[in-house]
Amino acid sequence: MRQATRYLDVPTQGQGFHDVTGPIRSWVASQKIADGLLTIWCQHTSASLTVQENADPDVRADLLDALDRLAPEGGGYRHTIEGADDMPAHIRSMLTQVSLSIPIIGGGLTLGTWQAIYLIEHRRATQTRRLALHLLGA
Amino acid sequence: MRQATRYLDVPTQGQGFHDVTGPIRSWVASQKIADGLLTIWCQHTSASLTVQENADPDVRADLLDALDRLAPEGGGYRHTIEGADDMPAHIRSMLTQVSLSIPIIGGGLTLGTWQAIYLIEHRRATQTRRLALHLLGA
Amino acid sequence: MRQATRYLDVPTQGQGFHDVTGPIRSWVASQKIADGLLTIWCQHTSASLTVQENADPDVRADLLDALDRLAPEGGGYRHTIEGADDMPAHIRSMLTQVSLSIPIIGGGLTLGTWQAIYLIEHRRATQTRRLALHLLGA
Repeated sequence: MRQATRYLDVPTQGQGFHDVTGPIRSWVASQKIADGLLTIWCQHTSASLTVQENADPDVRADLLDALDRLAPEGGGYRHTIEGADDMPAHIRSMLTQVSLSIPIIGGGLTLGTWQAIYLIEHRRATQTRRLALHLLGA
Repeated sequence: MRQATRYLDVPTQGQGFHDVTGPIRSWVASQKIADGLLTIWCQHTSASLTVQENADPDVRADLLDALDRLAPEGGGYRHTIEGADDMPAHIRSMLTQVSLSIPIIGGGLTLGTWQAIYLIEHRRATQTRRLALHLLGA
Repeated sequence: MRQATRYLDVPTQGQGFHDVTGPIRSWVASQKIADGLLTIWCQHTSASLTVQENADPDVRADLLDALDRLAPEGGGYRHTIEGADDMPAHIRSMLTQVSLSIPIIGGGLTLGTWQAIYLIEHRRATQTRRLALHLLGA
């Protein structure tokens, strides 16, 4: 059994879902692992991870609306010094994922047919977000 | 150190919590791992995972109500083509878990006394849901 | 490649965020792993894990308010026998994390600059909470 690690930088331009499945799948494929485990870690507290449907873009628009409803701007927060979109970003990160661990079976990630891996950007300003990847297997 | 993988199919019949602790624990026991790590991956975006109390069934009923309140049907969604329960199912999946990683110490999963592993079915129709399992250890 | 495991007990005194980054980082450092994977498991269904900003304490206060708004006490729950704070505690656990898996690259956890690991206590009474830790690497 062996392991591999790398960082993946994801440029974002405002709130939204960024599909990172392609570069992650490519890296995993390049490591020639038949069976193993991939872990993705998001190094931020105002951006996060989710796995969601990759077919209808309306799904992502509705998911953003849902996050906006669950953690609205102008919610009477104490923490406002970093901008009106910062505290909602922390709440939305808390309600979604910071790490994902995906088995590899038979040479590929066990993502379902409709599953894609998304980095969710919760801030309005342009950012570069960093994911740490760990791969283990044989 | 060695690893093992398998798929586990879970038939569901409408919205609710399906306890998958038994078959997962049995498979882990059959692998004779003293210390290690089990990872569970849910291959769907309208069903998800959670770890919750296994004692009072009222807890699961209240949890379903909570998900219904947080992601209601008829919420003015764009994505309605797959039925009124589909977009709420995606939101409820985003707010719960797609992967769980549980340490194994001293020959067993380190689940707490009251913890059970549940697949949450968010759709009304009968489904077969698939979990991918990865086990690693010695 | 090798692995190590341990339990970490966390005393809590009422609802709030308990920073467990220090003891976890110390244990990882003592294991002299250059590259690997750390998994943290929370053995409870009324306490949970999150990774959040470690700078402004107002952020944690606002996060507690958000959890209180999303899963309020007195929400008309069936399950009330363990106290008014118990069912909200289960919902808040479901909406946050029970496990976290963090890559180790170049000798340290790949936590971002502002990330700390918190155990969130959702109950009012004094408790001792237990985390199970699994470390793997070389």
